[in-house]
Amino acid sequence: MRIPILKLNEYLLITIQVELDDQTALQFQEDLLNKIHQTDAKGVVIDLTSVEMIDSFIAKVLGEVVNMSNLMGAKVVLTGIQPAVAITLIDLGIHLKGVPTALDLEQGLAKLEQDLEE
Amino acid sequence: MRIPILKLNEYLLITIQVELDDQTALQFQEDLLNKIHQTDAKGVVIDLTSVEMIDSFIAKVLGEVVNMSNLMGAKVVLTGIQPAVAITLIDLGIHLKGVPTALDLEQGLAKLEQDLEE
Repeated sequence: MRIPILKLNEYLLITIQVELDDQTALQFQEDLLNKIHQTDAKGVVIDLTSVEMIDSFIAKVLGEVVNMSNLMGAKVVLTGIQPAVAITLIDLGIHLKGVPTALDLEQGLAKLEQDLEE
Repeated sequence: MRIPILKLNEYLLITIQVELDDQTALQFQEDLLNKIHQTDAKGVVIDLTSVEMIDSFIAKVLGEVVNMSNLMGAKVVLTGIQPAVAITLIDLGIHLKGVPTALDLEQGLAKLEQDLEE
């Protein structure tokens, strides 16, 4: 399956609703970069509200896609990281340093707008 | 499983990414109405870009949730109806009359804003 990527003005919006398996995560990485290229997006919000579990591979793929998007000129904010997911990430030693995060979609978009104004 | 409902300023945003079974559709109906009540939302966008199949029961539930939301004071726009889904709906004799639709999320939100200004 593919994760849908929605366009909202100059931003892209992704709400991940399935537990990501490795193949889906890699496909998503490729799809997102292509979509940024196609749409000339300035910012991306990846919402993880519905993700209840994350493993080290998926965390790595997410961290990478943030860096890759930045290289292409699009800022990425991860939103809605659940308490259990935050605990798992830190337990795994994954700090997602340099990856902007926000509590929810609304605050994520606000953060992007603020960053782009600066 | 539950369909996540995201809040975006005064709107709610739902991207349906799974083929809806009857139970999930009814749960979604209830969740959406509760969320409208909690958040005092003025508008709702239900994005169906990833939905490739729809049956008459699901269409009925969607049509109902639009009317119920309207009763509660929130406008609903359905977006991203795929060609195959549109064909199926008309074949089934379901015209979703009185249900505003738009091509994608962006146009759906624009439609809500326009409606609310009037």
